[in-house]
Amino acid sequence: MFYHDGKLQYDVKVDKPNPQFAKMLQQAIGGIEGEMKVCMQYMFQAWGARGPEKYRDMLLETGTEEMAHIELLATAVALNLEGAPNDVKDDIAGKDPFMEQIMGGAMPRHLLSSGMSAMAVDSNGVPFNGSWVVGTGNLAADMYANVMAESAGRVLATRLWNSTEDKGMKDMLSFLIARDTMHQNQWLAVLEELGGTEGVHPIPNSFPQEKENQNFNYNFLSTHIKGDSKAHGRWSEGRSVDGKGEFTFEKATPQGRKPDLGGAHPSGFAQKEQMKENDSFIKSAFDKMK
Amino acid sequence: MFYHDGKLQYDVKVDKPNPQFAKMLQQAIGGIEGEMKVCMQYMFQAWGARGPEKYRDMLLETGTEEMAHIELLATAVALNLEGAPNDVKDDIAGKDPFMEQIMGGAMPRHLLSSGMSAMAVDSNGVPFNGSWVVGTGNLAADMYANVMAESAGRVLATRLWNSTEDKGMKDMLSFLIARDTMHQNQWLAVLEELGGTEGVHPIPNSFPQEKENQNFNYNFLSTHIKGDSKAHGRWSEGRSVDGKGEFTFEKATPQGRKPDLGGAHPSGFAQKEQMKENDSFIKSAFDKMK
Amino acid sequence: MFYHDGKLQYDVKVDKPNPQFAKMLQQAIGGIEGEMKVCMQYMFQAWGARGPEKYRDMLLETGTEEMAHIELLATAVALNLEGAPNDVKDDIAGKDPFMEQIMGGAMPRHLLSSGMSAMAVDSNGVPFNGSWVVGTGNLAADMYANVMAESAGRVLATRLWNSTEDKGMKDMLSFLIARDTMHQNQWLAVLEELGGTEGVHPIPNSFPQEKENQNFNYNFLSTHIKGDSKAHGRWSEGRSVDGKGEFTFEKATPQGRKPDLGGAHPSGFAQKEQMKENDSFIKSAFDKMK
Amino acid sequence: MFYHDGKLQYDVKVDKPNPQFAKMLQQAIGGIEGEMKVCMQYMFQAWGARGPEKYRDMLLETGTEEMAHIELLATAVALNLEGAPNDVKDDIAGKDPFMEQIMGGAMPRHLLSSGMSAMAVDSNGVPFNGSWVVGTGNLAADMYANVMAESAGRVLATRLWNSTEDKGMKDMLSFLIARDTMHQNQWLAVLEELGGTEGVHPIPNSFPQEKENQNFNYNFLSTHIKGDSKAHGRWSEGRSVDGKGEFTFEKATPQGRKPDLGGAHPSGFAQKEQMKENDSFIKSAFDKMK
Amino acid sequence: MFYHDGKLQYDVKVDKPNPQFAKMLQQAIGGIEGEMKVCMQYMFQAWGARGPEKYRDMLLETGTEEMAHIELLATAVALNLEGAPNDVKDDIAGKDPFMEQIMGGAMPRHLLSSGMSAMAVDSNGVPFNGSWVVGTGNLAADMYANVMAESAGRVLATRLWNSTEDKGMKDMLSFLIARDTMHQNQWLAVLEELGGTEGVHPIPNSFPQEKENQNFNYNFLSTHIKGDSKAHGRWSEGRSVDGKGEFTFEKATPQGRKPDLGGAHPSGFAQKEQMKENDSFIKSAFDKMK
Amino acid sequence: MFYHDGKLQYDVKVDKPNPQFAKMLQQAIGGIEGEMKVCMQYMFQAWGARGPEKYRDMLLETGTEEMAHIELLATAVALNLEGAPNDVKDDIAGKDPFMEQIMGGAMPRHLLSSGMSAMAVDSNGVPFNGSWVVGTGNLAADMYANVMAESAGRVLATRLWNSTEDKGMKDMLSFLIARDTMHQNQWLAVLEELGGTEGVHPIPNSFPQEKENQNFNYNFLSTHIKGDSKAHGRWSEGRSVDGKGEFTFEKATPQGRKPDLGGAHPSGFAQKEQMKENDSFIKSAFDKMK
Repeated sequence: MFYHDGKLQYDVKVDKPNPQFAKMLQQAIGGIEGEMKVCMQYMFQAWGARGPEKYRDMLLETGTEEMAHIELLATAVALNLEGAPNDVKDDIAGKDPFMEQIMGGAMPRHLLSSGMSAMAVDSNGVPFNGSWVVGTGNLAADMYANVMAESAGRVLATRLWNSTEDKGMKDMLSFLIARDTMHQNQWLAVLEELGGTEGVHPIPNSFPQEKENQNFNYNFLSTHIKGDSKAHGRWSEGRSVDGKGEFTFEKATPQGRKPDLGGAHPSGFAQKEQMKENDSFIKSAFDKMK
Repeated sequence: MFYHDGKLQYDVKVDKPNPQFAKMLQQAIGGIEGEMKVCMQYMFQAWGARGPEKYRDMLLETGTEEMAHIELLATAVALNLEGAPNDVKDDIAGKDPFMEQIMGGAMPRHLLSSGMSAMAVDSNGVPFNGSWVVGTGNLAADMYANVMAESAGRVLATRLWNSTEDKGMKDMLSFLIARDTMHQNQWLAVLEELGGTEGVHPIPNSFPQEKENQNFNYNFLSTHIKGDSKAHGRWSEGRSVDGKGEFTFEKATPQGRKPDLGGAHPSGFAQKEQMKENDSFIKSAFDKMK
Repeated sequence: MFYHDGKLQYDVKVDKPNPQFAKMLQQAIGGIEGEMKVCMQYMFQAWGARGPEKYRDMLLETGTEEMAHIELLATAVALNLEGAPNDVKDDIAGKDPFMEQIMGGAMPRHLLSSGMSAMAVDSNGVPFNGSWVVGTGNLAADMYANVMAESAGRVLATRLWNSTEDKGMKDMLSFLIARDTMHQNQWLAVLEELGGTEGVHPIPNSFPQEKENQNFNYNFLSTHIKGDSKAHGRWSEGRSVDGKGEFTFEKATPQGRKPDLGGAHPSGFAQKEQMKENDSFIKSAFDKMK
Repeated sequence: MFYHDGKLQYDVKVDKPNPQFAKMLQQAIGGIEGEMKVCMQYMFQAWGARGPEKYRDMLLETGTEEMAHIELLATAVALNLEGAPNDVKDDIAGKDPFMEQIMGGAMPRHLLSSGMSAMAVDSNGVPFNGSWVVGTGNLAADMYANVMAESAGRVLATRLWNSTEDKGMKDMLSFLIARDTMHQNQWLAVLEELGGTEGVHPIPNSFPQEKENQNFNYNFLSTHIKGDSKAHGRWSEGRSVDGKGEFTFEKATPQGRKPDLGGAHPSGFAQKEQMKENDSFIKSAFDKMK
Repeated sequence: MFYHDGKLQYDVKVDKPNPQFAKMLQQAIGGIEGEMKVCMQYMFQAWGARGPEKYRDMLLETGTEEMAHIELLATAVALNLEGAPNDVKDDIAGKDPFMEQIMGGAMPRHLLSSGMSAMAVDSNGVPFNGSWVVGTGNLAADMYANVMAESAGRVLATRLWNSTEDKGMKDMLSFLIARDTMHQNQWLAVLEELGGTEGVHPIPNSFPQEKENQNFNYNFLSTHIKGDSKAHGRWSEGRSVDGKGEFTFEKATPQGRKPDLGGAHPSGFAQKEQMKENDSFIKSAFDKMK
Repeated sequence: MFYHDGKLQYDVKVDKPNPQFAKMLQQAIGGIEGEMKVCMQYMFQAWGARGPEKYRDMLLETGTEEMAHIELLATAVALNLEGAPNDVKDDIAGKDPFMEQIMGGAMPRHLLSSGMSAMAVDSNGVPFNGSWVVGTGNLAADMYANVMAESAGRVLATRLWNSTEDKGMKDMLSFLIARDTMHQNQWLAVLEELGGTEGVHPIPNSFPQEKENQNFNYNFLSTHIKGDSKAHGRWSEGRSVDGKGEFTFEKATPQGRKPDLGGAHPSGFAQKEQMKENDSFIKSAFDKMK
């Protein structure tokens, strides 16, 4: 169950409102790298957590924190769109700078749909999508999903930080960047607890590894048709990172034949030319139709 | 540029066609854990690769391999739907078992839309979505996206393996499971080359870390309102995994105030009750409308 | 800022696990009538609230409660999928009833993607979509969005209640149905405070109504080509519900002409036949291309 | 069955074509507040209407009218994009102002995809989505969906009206605003016929209300962790709006326990650490795999 | 402007209601091959039609007819779901066959979301998507889109016809199949009027064809790495179908080099390893950040 | 199985980088007219091909070529975004022109999400959608889908060609335009092989045409309510294009009655007013609930 106190986790000040920056901030709210995604992701992982209790609790702790991050950013969007009134007040020549920004690059729906507040969309107005909420039921896979989310999230936040000269916004973003640093470390710490690279991989570690094809599990298969690929590195020779195999570099070759699906079945209503002539089955199928 | 030879990377045999298993295989084709995603993801990462050439080449190698995996699975779907004709042939009582399966749990669009072949959708028929193709421009973030993709992919493949008794399908899946083992290791190997956990994190390592808020970058913030959270572990004390800080456990507290967005601006056409009365600006804005 | 205590707002018991009912419950989690939608909707409305403070606070209160409802339902889904192990244990003949249900009507992704836990999707597996989160910036419009959400939500919950014989599930749903009753009343209460039907409509009440076309604002326009429409009622005569006009019933007739968009512009690369011949402008445009 | 006469319901004139305004108009065509949505919504509600015949007829009348509104707006978009040719004709310096607008804020797909005509998308280019078409099978819930749609629609239309100085566009919008006034009243009139607030609520009124949890159906539950919430109002004391209960204000408290999902089942292929050691069932499940 | 008469274009009778067939019919309503798509497609093409008036009129005629087809199918869905009550009446053992069908393969949302009526979704419940509405502004391209839509539509309708034994449904579908025959012919007739294959192609015929690369416009490029491709046919030799070139069969070879995007730019916050060391520009960019 | 050589199919040079053109190029990558669509479409058609082997091979040949086209365009996008660094270097006044373009019309996600590289989205940032990948299992229907795709694709490419003055970009586009010419011809050639218009239509030609309603298969049905429709042409008289009927022009009239769905079923929880009073079945259904 959840509670709130109406205050912000961190102060949000906007020195110079900027509808175009409001548009960019939407990426951190409703984008695939954004806070709605991590909030829902950690929540759903917690609600489906099986195994040691502490991971469920930790996921819930941080999922709840991320809800506060959406709140920070939604407030920042609203304040960046607040500038309009003031600009309008100063407007002498009859032009409305807010409207001009909406016309020329800001998000029209910030005026048209939300009346100058944040929305559950990314910086292109593409709606948040529940498919981004990853919870596999496998704790290690989920931890990688989380490290990845916090990495893309921190990359996004630094790009936003570098895109604005507004002190208030830079300050808020430096807080969010710091939290992303912590959260990257946090999910890595779980992986360490779970046994580190060798203990965790290959994920899932509960599948009996002897059942996988032993001829293809540690080979880098090169699909390059000639010899000049530069794709040599740590992955093409030496002990595998999970400690369970030896890397090799091999040319990819077909192990299978050319597939032949045969003629089309009557109930699929392909063109006649796709069916086998003189096939009594097909004839009777068509007879049945008539 | 790309080439093909029309053969399959691995043999695809279906001993007993099963339209319901065809539906489940769609998850591995057009689902978020599927082969279309990894194929496109590695391709786009390669095409946008900046920095050492070998990573571009390697991404291209493996992206090209994944295209062959879609081919394997699409063939498997078509063959699992092939069973219909044979079943129909044996049909005496006039009932068509294929149609019954379509009615009772298989994917109707395998008959209605594709005429018994694979589609670019997941096991619920939800179309493949380009938003799943992650390429951040940051090599380390991308590698985590890739480890995660191969982890979710291997988890999916083991679940499919365990869901069928068909020898041909089990054999094909054991090949794909093996390739996922390799690919997990492959992306981890890049992270090792890039400096391992300490060298890579916090991602992006090119952001001057002193600019992030130093009070919140290694603290586990507990949002639990009372004292009985179990969320203690490797992440709540000791050296941080990136080696750049010390973990602490702290109660989350608001650093900001309650936000006050003030009255609504006339051009947003809120209800009158949301606007500040006696505001001369608002009055003149409405006068202008009339 | 948000907090949690790890407990459920209401007890969740599942007497007889049922993967097919788990699938149906997804509609109440990630569907357009579901809890993710109302949670995010009330949150975003709160975060963008301008005007009297109490509405912001109330929206935040209830948005936070809805997060707990997602938690209830996600737990219910996980428990309905838990049945599998027990069933398997009792399994003698080698058939796995869970797998059979997955094959024949339950949601395959509950096994394949989430490992037997809830997902951010509806009962067809269609992902939650941020476009459903309505916050217009107009308090009255938002209240109607909320009444509507709680009405569709209560209709859904009663249908779910009627679809199960499981006592635990019926009890949990009777709690959620009760909360929907309250929330319908709650948003109606705001509309009453805002002046009731006459004070609130037409929404937005801040638009100077004399600027709308006075000939068409209280007329029911009948598009029926002959005289036998039954579409007469409270809306076709008498005082309008907002008290600002008189209803009439009129035949719809075109007030405008047939549109003529003229010939196509060269830069649109229509077929030549769509362009005006002998047009010197078009000729010069094509000359420029050459 | 449907008919047409090729004329517009209202005249559409564009004095000064404006590709950026064409982009904004798309919100009223393919956006969630737009005419495609209400057209399809009223149609589907009519086609599924059970109960008194007059509601079916009325829904069909107005659904058919809304099709004419899409036509108005689509024509307006095409005419706002028509300006290009004229501008180009006057162009001396070689710069194409249309192209510049497309580059700097107008919708590129108006050139690239539709050749200067309207599309079934919103102002961000996000496609119209059938999930927005609400028809619950419950007449009262549908009426609220309709009031809400016409409220958001009129808010949108007034914002568009205020965003343009073009007389033709303002005139067309003043017609659409007027129709939205009528349609808000129309759906409210149905609710009045159905018994008004007390007769209609809680929706659905066909569910035996004594089956909902009687302890939680008229209580405002405050999730605020301390005492300073401002969320007091009409909803926290006095008779409920539906006349069937008494409002109270209460602190939300957990009625349920902390959920414990237990260990993971082998067929989900979680990490081994998530499973219960020494569980004979799990051991035998893995044995079966080998 | 549009009108209606409330009657159906063709009679809809359902002899034996079948919720699973209702689910399949949804493909013909809200699927990519369905009636909503063609209705909207012909409408949008009409509304954006530039050039000879008759094509605009014809598109409007048929777009309006397609609206009546959605009506037919929506009625058919509702009637196929009507069976439930009757079945329930006959129910003795307490099991509800409708509910069982919903559980085991019919569409749960037909009960949960729409209360036994049609929805704007396909047979998997995936919502209708506005991106499917094709109107390119080029009449010939649009005609191919329309031929294709009616071809996929007729294929779908024949598959549905073959999936049911219900006489009423078969009769309604035989009407829709007939209309698809007409509409395929209708759009082909326009292409014939526009000059047939040689007059129409390559589309757009308004682009000065001498500006396209003359070395690659009539060559079949084989990407097969070895010589055993069977891909020889009408397209690999002889006069091209548009009469403007000669087909050849050639091995595809790279005309370009391997791309080198160089080092990453600081404002993208790639990993340091992706940037060029000793680059003074990068150093100063980072200095500016500090 | 697939291979690559790391080189481009054609040279990609960008003389003057332009982030706004990069945005427009995205339409040709991830848009519905783009290369991802045709690549996947031809691949899936090949993988599901039944009937003569040469069509499968040909589809695979060209699908593989299209992958190289995505590569070309992705490289072009990256190079158009490369300009930023150079511009920044020349920057004196402290303004970053790249950032200004991002702010004022370029795609923010090219900075925020992909770090200056291509994405799997269209020019509005709407993600590529698997529903666009058409493969019906009917070869002729698929060929029309392909002609249509290459027609819309060539229209798009000519519009892009006309939108840029960059020589490198114009050269690359003139190559892609040429390939679209070939591919239009290629799919038309298959249709010719399959028997031309008369042999191919009505699609599917395997459905026994005598089963379609013979009264409505060659009639143009006019839905115009008065006599002044201009919709007369090749389609309204003379031999049908498929040679199997005679075109007529007829007024559309309803063949069916007004539908009456009757009262609502209790388990749908409509409003009471929608149910039939005094219906004993309904009463007992409600009794069962209590």
